[in-house]
Amino acid sequence: MYDKLFTDQEKQLEQQFFEFLHFPSISADPAFRPELKACAVWLEKYLQESGFSVVMWNKDDAPVLFAENCTAGPDQPTLLIYNHYDVQPVDPIDLWESDPFAATRKGNQIVARGAQDNKGQCFYVISSLRALYKQFGKFPVNIKLIIEGEEESGSKSLPAILEEKKKALKADYVLVVDVGMHNPTTPAITLGTRGIICFTVDVTSSNHDLHSGAVGGIVYNPLHALTEILASLRDPNGRITVPGFYDQVVAPSKDELKNISLDLDSKEFEAEFGCLPTGGEKGLSPFERGWLRPTLEINGISGGYSGPGFKTVIPAKAVAKISCRLVPDQDPHVIGEHVKRFIESKEAPGFTVKCLVHEGSGKPVRTSPNSKLVQALAAAAEGVYKNKSAYIYEGGSIPIVTELAKAAGGEVCFFGLGLPSDKIHAPNENFGWDRIKNGFVIMCETLHALANASRKF
Amino acid sequence: MYDKLFTDQEKQLEQQFFEFLHFPSISADPAFRPELKACAVWLEKYLQESGFSVVMWNKDDAPVLFAENCTAGPDQPTLLIYNHYDVQPVDPIDLWESDPFAATRKGNQIVARGAQDNKGQCFYVISSLRALYKQFGKFPVNIKLIIEGEEESGSKSLPAILEEKKKALKADYVLVVDVGMHNPTTPAITLGTRGIICFTVDVTSSNHDLHSGAVGGIVYNPLHALTEILASLRDPNGRITVPGFYDQVVAPSKDELKNISLDLDSKEFEAEFGCLPTGGEKGLSPFERGWLRPTLEINGISGGYSGPGFKTVIPAKAVAKISCRLVPDQDPHVIGEHVKRFIESKEAPGFTVKCLVHEGSGKPVRTSPNSKLVQALAAAAEGVYKNKSAYIYEGGSIPIVTELAKAAGGEVCFFGLGLPSDKIHAPNENFGWDRIKNGFVIMCETLHALANASRKF
Repeated sequence: MYDKLFTDQEKQLEQQFFEFLHFPSISADPAFRPELKACAVWLEKYLQESGFSVVMWNKDDAPVLFAENCTAGPDQPTLLIYNHYDVQPVDPIDLWESDPFAATRKGNQIVARGAQDNKGQCFYVISSLRALYKQFGKFPVNIKLIIEGEEESGSKSLPAILEEKKKALKADYVLVVDVGMHNPTTPAITLGTRGIICFTVDVTSSNHDLHSGAVGGIVYNPLHALTEILASLRDPNGRITVPGFYDQVVAPSKDELKNISLDLDSKEFEAEFGCLPTGGEKGLSPFERGWLRPTLEINGISGGYSGPGFKTVIPAKAVAKISCRLVPDQDPHVIGEHVKRFIESKEAPGFTVKCLVHEGSGKPVRTSPNSKLVQALAAAAEGVYKNKSAYIYEGGSIPIVTELAKAAGGEVCFFGLGLPSDKIHAPNENFGWDRIKNGFVIMCETLHALANASRKF
Repeated sequence: MYDKLFTDQEKQLEQQFFEFLHFPSISADPAFRPELKACAVWLEKYLQESGFSVVMWNKDDAPVLFAENCTAGPDQPTLLIYNHYDVQPVDPIDLWESDPFAATRKGNQIVARGAQDNKGQCFYVISSLRALYKQFGKFPVNIKLIIEGEEESGSKSLPAILEEKKKALKADYVLVVDVGMHNPTTPAITLGTRGIICFTVDVTSSNHDLHSGAVGGIVYNPLHALTEILASLRDPNGRITVPGFYDQVVAPSKDELKNISLDLDSKEFEAEFGCLPTGGEKGLSPFERGWLRPTLEINGISGGYSGPGFKTVIPAKAVAKISCRLVPDQDPHVIGEHVKRFIESKEAPGFTVKCLVHEGSGKPVRTSPNSKLVQALAAAAEGVYKNKSAYIYEGGSIPIVTELAKAAGGEVCFFGLGLPSDKIHAPNENFGWDRIKNGFVIMCETLHALANASRKF
C-alpha cells in the first residue's frame, strides 16, 4: 500500500529531492550561511505543507528546525526523529564527476553532496510524513522532528538550546536516522553507540631539548617514559590495565546477544582496510570488541624530530592523545578520573607526567532490542527487504544524541540505509533511489506498527 | 716562558683574532660562500707567514685548508691538528647584544659568532704555532693542520677527499681541538667519543586513517604496536634487550677507569637541565652511562593527531626515529643489523614493521690515557691551570673524526677549553681572553713535551 503511495508521485518526489539537494548547505564554511538558511526555509515550508507546526531555533546562525504534529493524541506515543540538513564541504572539487549541488541521476544512483548524508535519509523521512498527511490528514503516532544545520561542524549550537527546549522535545522515543545497513541486502537497527572520554598526556623531563650524544643514557628521555606508560596501559591480552576501568561494565543481556549480528568476514575486512582485525581484547570476536567492549586507543603521539633524515635530539617533552570508548554503564567522568590517576601515578624521578581530561565527553547509549520502536522498525525493514533485520551497534560516539535523548527523556534508537559505497564526506557522494523508496515505505510501516503496538486494548 | 711569548705581543694577537672573527663564514647558508672563502684566504696567509706550506682542497666550494711543516724530521712524531673556521648562523639576530661579526671585548670576554666554536679554539692553535715559528724558526715536532669550512653544516665535502689525501694526512697523532674543559677550573682531555647508528621504524596497519569509534578494538592501532615495540627495547633496569647488543662491548681498562672523572653533581645537573639524571642503565653512575655505555634513544615519534583539542583517529601508520650511541668495539653495521632484526621480529598479524638503517653511521673512538700526546697535553694543562687534568669522554659522536683518524692512521685525542657558558650556536657566543692565552701556552708546552717524550735516547 505505501509502495503505491510512493510510486504514484515518484516524479514529484524526485523533483522535491533535487530541490533539497540543490542548496549548498555547508555548515563548516561561514561563507555558505545564506545558502544554509535558504535550505532551512525550504524545509520549513515543506514541513508546514506536511501538517507540521514549525519553529526555527538559533535562526540567526545555523537554524535548527523543530516541527511538531501531536494530533494522534495522548494515548499514542510521541516519536522524536533526528536528521540534519547541512552537508560536508566538497573538496577536492576536481574529483567530482558532476556538480555536487546540481544533482544528477544515473540509473538508480543520485549523485550530489548530501545525497545520502543526511539529506537522502532526511528526505525519505519527511516525504513519507508528507504523503501520510496528504492521504490521511493525520499521523498514527505523535511526531516531533528536529533537523539541525550544524551536524557536520560539531553540532555547536544545539547542546546549549536543549535544556531550555526540554518540554518541547519531550518524547517516548528518539529515532536518529543517520546510520547504515548491515550490508546491501540486510537492513539493520543500531541499538547503541559507545561513549567517549579523551585525554592529553604530557611527559616532560628537561627544560629544553637536549643532544642524544651529550646526555643519552644520563637523562630519562620523555619519549621512552611515554612509550613505557602507554605500553603499560594494556596487558598482553589487550585488556586495559587501568584499575577500576571495567568495574561499571554491564555484560550485554541475553536478548541483546541473541539478536546481534557479529559476523565479520576477516577476508572482506582485509580487502577493505588492508589489515586483519587483530586489535583489542583477545578471545572476543571483532564486533564484540568494537561494539560491546570499551577501548583505550592512542590517537596521536608527538615529540622530538620527525622530518626527513635524522636529528639526534632528546626532546624536553613528549605528548600523547588518548581516547576511551565506553559501554554501559561506564560513566565518562569516573573513567576519566581512573585513567588520569593511573597515568599520573607513573611519574618517577627524572620526568613529570600530566594527564589532562578533555571536556566534551559522551555517555554510552544502548536500547533494548525489545523496544516497541525497534521491533516496529525491524519488522517494517524486513517486510521491505525480505531479509531479517540485523541488530548492530555503532562503535563510535554521537555525543549530541546522548544530550538529545536526555532532554527528550525517551528511548533512543538509530536507523538508516547508508552503505560504505555511498562515499559520504567524499567526492561523488551518492544514494540509491531504491533506498529513498524503501526508507519511505519503512517509515510509513513503522509509524503504523508503533501505533498498533502502543494501542491500549 | 711561553707566557711571556704571549704577553709580549698581546695587542697584535687580539687584533689578529678580531680580524679572524670579522668574517661571517657561515657554511650552512650558500649566500655566505664569498665570506667563507675570504676567511679561508685570510687563514692561508696567516699560516704561510707562520712557516707552513698551505694548500686548499675543495677550493671552489667550502675550502679545506691543509698546512704542513715537517722540518722536525723523521725522528720526531707527526701531529695532525683539526679545527674549523666556519661558524653557525646567527639567528635569532635580535637576541644579540652586539653585532656577531664585529667582535667586542667586555673585560675578559670576547663576544662574537665563532668566538669559541671554533675560531677561538683554532686561534690559540695557530697563533701559538706562529709565535713558535717566529721565535725558533721551526717546530719541536712535525705539524700538519687541517682546518675545514663545513663542520657546522655536516662536513659534507671532507669525507670524499680523505681517501685521496691519505698520504698527505699521515700522522702519528690526530688532535681535535673542538671540545671543552671539565669545569672552569679543571682542564680536560677527552679520550673518546661514542659511535652512532640511526634508524627509522615504520609501523603500518590499515591502508588509510580510520575512526577510533568505528574500528577501535577491531584493528591493531599502529601507535599501540609502536609503543609496545619501543617499550620492549629496554628492560626494567634500562638495559637494551636487543640480542647481541652488548656482545662487542669492551669493558674500560683499569687505566681508563683510574683516570676518569666521573663526578657529576646531581643538584647542579638539575639546576641546569630541570631534571634529575635518572636515565639509562640502573646501578651505574651518570657519566658511566653517558660516556662508557652504549644507548638506544628514541629521537622522535609521530603518528595520528597532535594539534589542539582532539581528533579520534587511528592512524594508518606510526613512525619512530631511533639512534644508538656505541662504545668500543661495537661496530655500527653489526648493531644496525641486530636492532633491525629484533624490531622487525615484532611484526604480528594486523600490522607490518619496517626498520630502516640510516647511512652516515660512525664508529666509537677511544684513546689510551697512556698515549704520549695525552700525557703531554695533561701535563701542560695542569701546569697552566694548577689543577690536575680530568680525563673525560664525549657522549656524542663526531663521524668526521673517525674518518680523519682512519685516513691519518694515528691515535686520536680531543682537547679544548670550551665551557657551557660560552653559548656556542646561540646568541652572544663568547670566549674568555684568558683561555686564548692558556690555550696558546698549553699548545706550546705540549709540542715541546711531545718532542721530549718521543726523543730517542
